[in-house]
Amino acid sequence: MRQRQVYEILHQQILSGIYPPGSRLPASRQLAAELGTSRMTLQTAVQQLVAEGLLLTRPGSGVYVAETVPSGSGHPVEPHFSAWAERLRHAPFLQRQGMRGSQLRSFAASFPYDIWRRMLGRYLSTDDAILNRYGSPAGFGPLREAIAAKVARLRGVNCTAEQVIIVSGIQQALDILARLLIDPGDEVVVENPGYVSAYRVFVVYGADLQPVPVDRSGMIVSDILAESRARLAFVTPANQFPRGGAMSLERRLALLDWAARQQALIIEDDYDGELRYDGQPLAALQSLDRDGRVIYLGTFSKVLFPALRLGYVILPEVLHRPFLHARQLLDRGAPTLTQAAAADFIAEGHFERHLKKLRQLYRVRRQLLVESLESRLGSIVRFTGEPAGLHVWLTLTGGLSEGDVLPRLQAHELPIYPGSPYFLTPDASTNLIFNFSELTEEQIVASVDILGREILSKV
Amino acid sequence: MRQRQVYEILHQQILSGIYPPGSRLPASRQLAAELGTSRMTLQTAVQQLVAEGLLLTRPGSGVYVAETVPSGSGHPVEPHFSAWAERLRHAPFLQRQGMRGSQLRSFAASFPYDIWRRMLGRYLSTDDAILNRYGSPAGFGPLREAIAAKVARLRGVNCTAEQVIIVSGIQQALDILARLLIDPGDEVVVENPGYVSAYRVFVVYGADLQPVPVDRSGMIVSDILAESRARLAFVTPANQFPRGGAMSLERRLALLDWAARQQALIIEDDYDGELRYDGQPLAALQSLDRDGRVIYLGTFSKVLFPALRLGYVILPEVLHRPFLHARQLLDRGAPTLTQAAAADFIAEGHFERHLKKLRQLYRVRRQLLVESLESRLGSIVRFTGEPAGLHVWLTLTGGLSEGDVLPRLQAHELPIYPGSPYFLTPDASTNLIFNFSELTEEQIVASVDILGREILSKV
Repeated sequence: MRQRQVYEILHQQILSGIYPPGSRLPASRQLAAELGTSRMTLQTAVQQLVAEGLLLTRPGSGVYVAETVPSGSGHPVEPHFSAWAERLRHAPFLQRQGMRGSQLRSFAASFPYDIWRRMLGRYLSTDDAILNRYGSPAGFGPLREAIAAKVARLRGVNCTAEQVIIVSGIQQALDILARLLIDPGDEVVVENPGYVSAYRVFVVYGADLQPVPVDRSGMIVSDILAESRARLAFVTPANQFPRGGAMSLERRLALLDWAARQQALIIEDDYDGELRYDGQPLAALQSLDRDGRVIYLGTFSKVLFPALRLGYVILPEVLHRPFLHARQLLDRGAPTLTQAAAADFIAEGHFERHLKKLRQLYRVRRQLLVESLESRLGSIVRFTGEPAGLHVWLTLTGGLSEGDVLPRLQAHELPIYPGSPYFLTPDASTNLIFNFSELTEEQIVASVDILGREILSKV
Repeated sequence: MRQRQVYEILHQQILSGIYPPGSRLPASRQLAAELGTSRMTLQTAVQQLVAEGLLLTRPGSGVYVAETVPSGSGHPVEPHFSAWAERLRHAPFLQRQGMRGSQLRSFAASFPYDIWRRMLGRYLSTDDAILNRYGSPAGFGPLREAIAAKVARLRGVNCTAEQVIIVSGIQQALDILARLLIDPGDEVVVENPGYVSAYRVFVVYGADLQPVPVDRSGMIVSDILAESRARLAFVTPANQFPRGGAMSLERRLALLDWAARQQALIIEDDYDGELRYDGQPLAALQSLDRDGRVIYLGTFSKVLFPALRLGYVILPEVLHRPFLHARQLLDRGAPTLTQAAAADFIAEGHFERHLKKLRQLYRVRRQLLVESLESRLGSIVRFTGEPAGLHVWLTLTGGLSEGDVLPRLQAHELPIYPGSPYFLTPDASTNLIFNFSELTEEQIVASVDILGREILSKV
C-alpha cells in the first residue's frame, strides 16, 4: 500500500473516532500489519499526520491522537437561507417541468462535426495563447462581430458588435436581466401559455407575473391590464413559444407603444427566429425599436447544438454597463475555445449553410406532419399552421383533454408532450406539443398513426 | 445588389425617417437606380416590406410608407433597476481592480495541448450524441466521478460524486452561494487582505463584510468579533490569498468551532491548493468538518487553463438541492464537450502528470525568485516563505510604499502588482505581489534586478 493511502486511512480513522482524541495508536509493527503496509511507509504517513497536528509523538511512549481532533459539534446544520433561496425552495410553480430545453430538444443530426472539429483544432495548438487567458466578460471579439453581422443579415437587428454580450445561453441572460430589473413585488408582463423556464427565474426574484393571452398573432397586447405597473415584458415574437405564430406588426407596434407609456423594457426571446421555413421571417421586434427598449436574446442551441452553451444578448445602451458588470461578477465569461470556433463557423459561412440544410430538413418534416395530422385527425385536432420551429402545437376538440391521450401514448415514447405545463392559468389541458425535429419521415407517419388511433378510440 | 440587402436598406430608411410615415416612395425605376439594383430585385424587397406592413401599395398610385411606422417615443429610457443593480452600480468598492483572475494569470505554457486535442476529438464524432443533448445541471457524470476521486487523493476531501457540482468557475459558485445565503444586511466574515472578487459578489447581494486580519498562519480566528452575527465565512486555508501561508490546524479547528457555535457555514476557496512545492499539502479544511459546514470550491483554471471555464463545488448535504435548483435556473450547465474531455484527462492520469510538471517548474522559479530577492533586497523587503502558489507577497519596510515603487516599474511591464486592492481597510499600501509563474529563470533574475534598482534608489 502506498504512503498516501496509508495516510488517508489513518486520517479518516482519527477523524471518525476509531482512534479517539488522546488515545494511543497501536504499536507501529501491529498497525503496519493491520494496514497491510511496511513500517517505513507507515512511519512517513505518521510523520505527515504529526506535521498536521492530528498526531503527536511522546518519546519513549508512542504515538497519540491529539486532544484537539475535531469530532463534530453534534448540532444539525441549519443554514440561514436568503429570501431568494426561500422563494426557490418553496415556490410550487417551480416544481413543474419546463421543456423547451431538455425535452423539446433539437437533434441537429446533420451537424457538420468535421468542420466543427477543424475549427476547434485551429485553436488547440501550443503556439496560440488564446486558451491561456481569461476571456473578456463581454465575449470573444470576433464572435461578437460575427453575431452582430449575422443578426443584422438574418433578423434585421440593428446593433454594433459592442452591444453584443456572449452568455452561456438564454437562461443565463434571463437570470442576469431578472436580477438587474426585478425587485420582489415587481410586475412582469408575460405570454400565457409561454416559456415557463423564464417565468421561474422571474418568480424566484420575486416577480408578480401578469399573464397575457396569446393567439395566432402572438401576445394580445390590448389585454395587458390597464392598471398594470409593469416595467418589464417578456415576449417570443418570431414564433410564440409554445403555441407558435409570429406576432403581427400591429401588435409589435402596440407593444412598443405600451412600453413607451409605461417606461418599460421588453425582452425579446428570439430562440428560434432563424428556423422559419417559408420565405423571409419578419425582422426582429428589436429592429422596430427606436428608443432602446428592446433587449434581444439569441442562442446557438437550436441551430448548432444545445450542449454548446452559447447564447447572446443585444442590449440597449442604458443596460450595457450594468449587464457587463453583473456578468463579470458572476462568471468570468464563456470558454474562449468554443467562442473562437463559433466565430469562424459563422464568419466562414458554415452557420448559414447548416441553417439552410436544417430549414430544408425541418420544412419537409413539418409539412409531412401537418398533412398527416390533417388527413388523419383534421376533424378532431386543430393546430397552428405556421411553418416554423421544431414542434407543432395541437388543440384537442370534442371535450378531449391531454389526460385522455397522453398516458396511453407513453409506452410508444413519442415526442408528444402535454401543453398544460406552459400555462400560468389552470384551465387549459387540451393541448399537445408534437416535436417533429427528431423524427424521420417514416417515424412521423407512424407517430401520427399511433396518435390517431389513441385519439379516435376516445372520441 | 442582392434582394436582402435592398430590403435591409429600405427597411432602415423607412424606420430612420428618410421616408417618413405616409410618404410615397420614389418610382421604382428611380429607386432601383438609386439603390444600384434591378427593378425586379427592388420589387421583391418591396413585397416583403408590404407583407410586414411597413409599406402599402395603392393601385395606380404607387408605394407608400405605412402611417403606423414606429418613430420612437422620444422619452429617454429610464429602466427600473433592482436593489441588486443599484448596489452593483453604486458601490465604489466595485470599481477597484481585482486581480486573481485576469492579472495574476497562470500561463500553463507546458500544457499538453496535443493530449487535450485528442480528448476533445474523441467526442467530436457524428456518432456520439453527447453534444446534442443538454447536459445535467449538476455536470457530466464521469467528470464528477473523476473530481471526487481527485480531491480525495490530492486534497483529502471527503465526498461522493453526488456532492460534486460542476460550475463555470469559482466565481459562479460564489455567486450562487451568495444568492442562496446572503440577504441585505447579513454579516459575512472574510480574510483581510483577501480575495476581493469574492467580496464584490457578497457586497452586491447586500452583505456586511467583517474583515478579519491574517498572518502567516491564515485568518486570525480569535479576532472574529465576539458580537458577530455572521452565519457565513470565506477563507483560503491552503494558501491564503493574496498573502500566502497555510492556515494552521489550530486555526482550522478554531474556525470550525466558531462555525458550530454560530450555526455558520464556511466557504473554503481552494483555488490553488494543488500548487504546493514542498511535501504534502495540508488536507483541505473540508476533511476536518464532521458536521457538514464546509463548502469546498475548486477550479481547473490554475492547473489547466483559465479559458477552460470549469470549476466545482463540493457541497454539504443540506445545500445540495438548493444549489442544484439555483444552478438549473440560472444556467443549464457547462458545455458537455469540455467536461467530457476534462473527465478523461483526469481519469487517464494526464492531470496529475501535468500537475507534477507544473510543480517542478514553479518550484524552481519560486526558489530562484526567493533567493534573488533575499540576496538583493533582503534588508528592505520581507516576504512570505511558503513554497506554494503562483506569486510571492512582498512587504516593503523602511517607510516605503507601493506608490514609491510601482509607477517607475510600469515601463518595464513586470508582473508586479500593488497589494492595496486586496485590503478592505485603507491603511495598507506597503505590499507588492510578484507573480513568478509566467517568467523564465532569466526573466526572474532580470526582474529582481530592476525591482532592486528601483527600490534601492528610493531608500
